[in-house]
Amino acid sequence: MLILVTNDDGILSPGLTVLAEKLADVGRVVVVAPDRERSAIGHSVTLHAPLRADRIRKDCYAVSGTPTDCVNLGIHGFLGQRPDIVVSGINRGGNLGDDITYSGTVAAAMEATLMDVPAFAVSLDSGRFNAEDFVDAAEFAAYLAGQINDKGLPADTFLNVNVPAGAIKGVQLTRQGKRNYTEAVEEKTDPRGRTYYWIGGGELGFHDVKGTDFHAMVNNYISVTPLHLDLTNYRSFDELSSWELDSDCLKKDTSA
Amino acid sequence: MLILVTNDDGILSPGLTVLAEKLADVGRVVVVAPDRERSAIGHSVTLHAPLRADRIRKDCYAVSGTPTDCVNLGIHGFLGQRPDIVVSGINRGGNLGDDITYSGTVAAAMEATLMDVPAFAVSLDSGRFNAEDFVDAAEFAAYLAGQINDKGLPADTFLNVNVPAGAIKGVQLTRQGKRNYTEAVEEKTDPRGRTYYWIGGGELGFHDVKGTDFHAMVNNYISVTPLHLDLTNYRSFDELSSWELDSDCLKKDTSA
Repeated sequence: MLILVTNDDGILSPGLTVLAEKLADVGRVVVVAPDRERSAIGHSVTLHAPLRADRIRKDCYAVSGTPTDCVNLGIHGFLGQRPDIVVSGINRGGNLGDDITYSGTVAAAMEATLMDVPAFAVSLDSGRFNAEDFVDAAEFAAYLAGQINDKGLPADTFLNVNVPAGAIKGVQLTRQGKRNYTEAVEEKTDPRGRTYYWIGGGELGFHDVKGTDFHAMVNNYISVTPLHLDLTNYRSFDELSSWELDSDCLKKDTSA
Repeated sequence: MLILVTNDDGILSPGLTVLAEKLADVGRVVVVAPDRERSAIGHSVTLHAPLRADRIRKDCYAVSGTPTDCVNLGIHGFLGQRPDIVVSGINRGGNLGDDITYSGTVAAAMEATLMDVPAFAVSLDSGRFNAEDFVDAAEFAAYLAGQINDKGLPADTFLNVNVPAGAIKGVQLTRQGKRNYTEAVEEKTDPRGRTYYWIGGGELGFHDVKGTDFHAMVNNYISVTPLHLDLTNYRSFDELSSWELDSDCLKKDTSA
């Protein structure tokens, strides 16, 4: 099994190192990761600039782009063959609820899915990120990679895995939960008298609902959320159909 | 009605200008847009650096960040009040199928939704992007903004609007279609002899399935796709439940 490993915390992150080490028990690991931290970068792809990929050592490359770029290069570029699986992480901090749409870690798994390569993202929902803190998450990732290799993922599906800190009670299949966003923007003045803004600062709560990724964290379960790329809100079709939208606003103009 | 307008093509894009002009017929428009092109930036948010917002003229600000940053600043920053709606576009080129996960235009509407502000993205699926080419899309956007203001969007829902080039037959409520991704990576050598990579170049096809955004474009209908932020693939739960994932891989280690 050829395993492509990436992340969004950058190639120097201990979460990546521990993950690559544990995955080496179940396959050949090639690391293709951003050369620096690229968290909250979303599903950003570099289309309008060239990318560099420096070989740090055998099977380990630092790329001057995003996690999505790394997966793209890894699958279409210098691996020479398509990987059997892409594993992204281990992220410093949970990727839970709506936050996953911002996550470079999750986006890397999304990108692999678009290229028909099975993938999952794995994150550690903790405040401590030394090498030893990542071991449980890395071992679960190695186990899960083996399961995926044996069974194959459902069509168009990738997995978002979050591992709680501390003693783990088990594994729950969850759905994506919801945040309460109360983010604020700080406005300040720089040493030269110009205004700047900094996003963040607000307390972020969440809806603690049974069956969600958040709820699994609170109760010390590993959360496995199956995701797909279809953002269509099918449940809204009935209500929107009743609007009877038309393009008469354009016809009116033509006749004027 | 206070309308926040943004895009990912940057504040100088004619699509933004035409959109803002037409929306001024239905409300007060404030433009908060990236100071340069930021396409394919996804739902990227700038958390680890300050942002600048330069006032270009009354109710028009150029921000040194992403479309998501613009919405964040616009809602929490210098507007003084929450906008009634966020309109993002008009994008140069369609935002269709799985591609929307890369789109900065769509991400701006996503960000507004997270902050409980109704929003839609609007894109012109054409190869011509002069000011006059955007007029139909802008007029439909003004009509749609009025409809949303009157009726309110369904819960947690935002809209992804694509307008075809040429004569428009009507409006279709669609679901997100699927691309065939065949992207390649070009490997080249720079003038100083170092290797670089460039993503893209492959021909992108799509599944021409009735009811999808792609199908509406092919048949000259405006496509309105209701989206949400829940990426959970509920249909995969049965299959994945049968895997009976557990955390025994961790317990084994403790006892060793």
